[in-house]
Amino acid sequence: MEPDIHPELQPLAFLLGTWRGTGKGDYPTIQPFDYEEEVRFWHVGKPLLLYTQRTRTPADGQIRHSEMGYWRAVPGGRVEIVLAHPFGIVEIQEGTVEGGRIEVASTLVGLTATAKEVTRLERSFELRGSGALAYEVRMQAVGQPLQHHLSAELHREE
Amino acid sequence: MEPDIHPELQPLAFLLGTWRGTGKGDYPTIQPFDYEEEVRFWHVGKPLLLYTQRTRTPADGQIRHSEMGYWRAVPGGRVEIVLAHPFGIVEIQEGTVEGGRIEVASTLVGLTATAKEVTRLERSFELRGSGALAYEVRMQAVGQPLQHHLSAELHREE
Repeated sequence: MEPDIHPELQPLAFLLGTWRGTGKGDYPTIQPFDYEEEVRFWHVGKPLLLYTQRTRTPADGQIRHSEMGYWRAVPGGRVEIVLAHPFGIVEIQEGTVEGGRIEVASTLVGLTATAKEVTRLERSFELRGSGALAYEVRMQAVGQPLQHHLSAELHREE
Repeated sequence: MEPDIHPELQPLAFLLGTWRGTGKGDYPTIQPFDYEEEVRFWHVGKPLLLYTQRTRTPADGQIRHSEMGYWRAVPGGRVEIVLAHPFGIVEIQEGTVEGGRIEVASTLVGLTATAKEVTRLERSFELRGSGALAYEVRMQAVGQPLQHHLSAELHREE
């Protein structure tokens, strides 16, 4: 049985569901690339979303990246995101949710001994209409200044 | 199509699959408790495991805790674990895998603004026979010294 949505989760409830779409990535140290993405948000009756994401290379369907974690709704229009990345990174993002717009920036990026050096991440999400979600990721990494890294537009699966 | 197991993942391959069992938790600041647990490890052809875990209260099936993240196999018998917790914690664990035994300790515990104060976690895992996995978690939190927090024994689903 699906639990009720926790009242404190309401500001983030527009994210619930499975989203698919395409995005583009670039950074000074790599070749620009396209990707296909699937994002899933679900809940278990608590004031938080469970989150998984994965991207694939369009040409061959190879899995490229993935992330997992939790999006916590905090009273007062705040959001806290805790994420793990397969390339040895943990990330805490904090910021605001207002209407269909979320703006967060990393308060912590933690690296394992063998991880690539990422020092700051900022993420923006915007609901467009009721069924499209656009996002941008800005990254400071491997000695480069904070700058655009990823953008994508996803559509909610029925 | 299931990808082949990456050769560097072999030291951790014994974890692959879905595991279920029961555990016990205690800490000076809380009442001792029992839990039911489901752990899932899978792979996508890279030298890492994807990991999700959740526990429930036996009496009513309520979801109690969950975690998600990645276990990275590092050449030389090393393992790096990156985890996110729903109560606003990210965790990096590093240590060793030797045979069916894994010993890791946190190199980083990161907290969101509203998270409970956890300062150190240590985890031990031991394969028993081919189908049982026992673990212990030791925790330093909320001003208490590092000490036993959780232990469980899980069995691999066929």
